[in-house]
Amino acid sequence: MPKVGICLSGCGVNDGSEIHESVITLLALDRAGAEILFMAPNIAQTKVVNHLTGELMNESRNVLVESARIARGKISDLANVSARDIDALIFPGGFGAALNLCDFGLKGADCDINPEVERLIKEMITARKPVGVICIAPAMLSRALKDLNLKPELTVGNDPGTAGQMDRLGTVHVECPVQEFVVDERYKIVSTPAYMLAGRVSEAAEGIEKLVQKVLALI
Amino acid sequence: MPKVGICLSGCGVNDGSEIHESVITLLALDRAGAEILFMAPNIAQTKVVNHLTGELMNESRNVLVESARIARGKISDLANVSARDIDALIFPGGFGAALNLCDFGLKGADCDINPEVERLIKEMITARKPVGVICIAPAMLSRALKDLNLKPELTVGNDPGTAGQMDRLGTVHVECPVQEFVVDERYKIVSTPAYMLAGRVSEAAEGIEKLVQKVLALI
Repeated sequence: MPKVGICLSGCGVNDGSEIHESVITLLALDRAGAEILFMAPNIAQTKVVNHLTGELMNESRNVLVESARIARGKISDLANVSARDIDALIFPGGFGAALNLCDFGLKGADCDINPEVERLIKEMITARKPVGVICIAPAMLSRALKDLNLKPELTVGNDPGTAGQMDRLGTVHVECPVQEFVVDERYKIVSTPAYMLAGRVSEAAEGIEKLVQKVLALI
Repeated sequence: MPKVGICLSGCGVNDGSEIHESVITLLALDRAGAEILFMAPNIAQTKVVNHLTGELMNESRNVLVESARIARGKISDLANVSARDIDALIFPGGFGAALNLCDFGLKGADCDINPEVERLIKEMITARKPVGVICIAPAMLSRALKDLNLKPELTVGNDPGTAGQMDRLGTVHVECPVQEFVVDERYKIVSTPAYMLAGRVSEAAEGIEKLVQKVLALI
């Protein structure tokens, strides 16, 4: 039974993990018989957004604590997880991947990345264990791999602004429809656009389910 | 294209809607071609729980605002929704259904219910439009229908304590395995145990997907 990590970034599309993408990933992994290890960094969220109005809320929330809502409490501090603990790792999207795991959403290609996120991704790539990235998470992965000069092929769908910033980070952006995925077999990296393109949840689900199958096949 | 309401009670199993159940319901409806109308009451949560530790948090959150995380912002105040607006209505579980929509989780059969929730449920039953209830939500439905003396058949799985309180509210509790559902064809009420029994998400999903198909078939 493969053990697959799901790295969350909060709980909600505008300031954390995209909830639909996270649950669809979880369900596809569970149906495939995988054991799941949820994880998230134990840090404050960059911001808290009222998802009804879109306005900023004047409060502070913790990424690990809010991610625990999606994980039903069974979640590890990312700092305590290494590539030895898992056979593959998947990052759902949501703006939290570009606000809390890194700050690509604020600074584009000039962004910084959480050091524990960068460490774990580099461990996975070095160990030749597959990594899946959904929605905006490929931008975060581009930043994590920037120093390694790998030129990985990744997709965020077809948004030229985001793709251009990823190219500046050394990634080769590949256009991809929402129901499909892009795989870079050299590094075992799989990506799918999900809500970067999806107009409805079933479109995102189709691409994510294919991504999960591909990630498992690469183990 | 049928239009189906999903009534949420927050965002997280311990103080709001169970997130997996909510997304699985949404995805099954979308894949069946239904149009979805999310709704939630515009009230304060009864409590806010740290889902990492299980401890109470000393803060206040709003049910509609937090539910909007699951709905990606497209959600209506329940007070503005009537049975005329939808062809069917589904309540995911999570402790929010027994804390925020009613307070069965605190008072059992002596609980009160949110008046807008009670109104909409009674409108649906009177209009002979199907209602689906997942996990602990059947307890809330029992309270909503208490005055009508209908003796509806409902399930929360096999928990004798919860079932006994529901029986006190005039419901006939029916035991049901997690992968199945119970239907009361007289009132077009469908229920499934989900995380009242599920050990893993795929078990909950199987029952919820069958519930969604049955609810749609009853329209």
